Amino acid sequence: MYTAKVEKLLVNYKTLEEFKAFKEYGLQELSMLEDLESNIIENDSVSPFYGIYFGNKLVARMSLYRVDKKFNKYFEPAQDYLELWKLEVLPAYQNKGYGKALVDYAKSYNLPIKTNPRVKSSAFWEKMGFKPATYHMERDLGENPLLWFPEGVHEIE
Amino acid sequence: MYTAKVEKLLVNYKTLEEFKAFKEYGLQELSMLEDLESNIIENDSVSPFYGIYFGNKLVARMSLYRVDKKFNKYFEPAQDYLELWKLEVLPAYQNKGYGKALVDYAKSYNLPIKTNPRVKSSAFWEKMGFKPATYHMERDLGENPLLWFPEGVHEIE
Repeated sequence: MYTAKVEKLLVNYKTLEEFKAFKEYGLQELSMLEDLESNIIENDSVSPFYGIYFGNKLVARMSLYRVDKKFNKYFEPAQDYLELWKLEVLPAYQNKGYGKALVDYAKSYNLPIKTNPRVKSSAFWEKMGFKPATYHMERDLGENPLLWFPEGVHEIE
Repeated sequence: MYTAKVEKLLVNYKTLEEFKAFKEYGLQELSMLEDLESNIIENDSVSPFYGIYFGNKLVARMSLYRVDKKFNKYFEPAQDYLELWKLEVLPAYQNKGYGKALVDYAKSYNLPIKTNPRVKSSAFWEKMGFKPATYHMERDLGENPLLWFPEGVHEIE
């Protein structure tokens, strides 16, 4: 079985140019570009992005950040968790397991995971074992949080 | 000049049925429906939603919630602010000023406003006087926060 290789992405002009092919290009990418251009960050600085290459081409990516347990509002027992966002596979490369490979990589930390996906992607996340959080307006506002629990972890009451 | 009337929406089966016409139908609406069905909330309970009717039909809506200043991470001087989400006008009713009427309603509280819109809507928000926040990864994660400042308020340093 073919397994896609997940790589940590470094911030450089090539990566930022490749990011433009993804739909969810937004403030985060623009801010990284500005920081690079104004030498606030160096070329090849670490980024929160992970990706999969097909040959030389970046075809899938996600952002992943470890949130300190003092900000935890989702998981019991309280612990650090991973926030996952901007999971996206370029259209021509979908349905080849790249999305799953990225999510499996995130799960390999064995920390709880929270994501706030686009409304239409719920079938994918269900297949990945994510469950909708119980919606609390004051906490979730415009989010649709989906949660993944490693063994022994459950949703906060 | 025609001015659309913005109304606070009550939670009832009619409203929740009308919400299904909007693209951003998600956990929030599902949770309101469950709460209504299981009598956790009463018919015609208040909701965070505001809307505009064209005749009997709900054609535009937004959610609005006043966040306590102790959670403020965007505005100086520190104060309560409004979180605005799910601003949406049904396709056949766009470009008639309904979106602007909803945003103007939100501005009428004279509190700072934060929203995290879809990536493609930046031209609209710019016209409404919203400015991109300076992106801070630890704070903003997957968000693209746009901010509106009443007089005397500016972005946190």
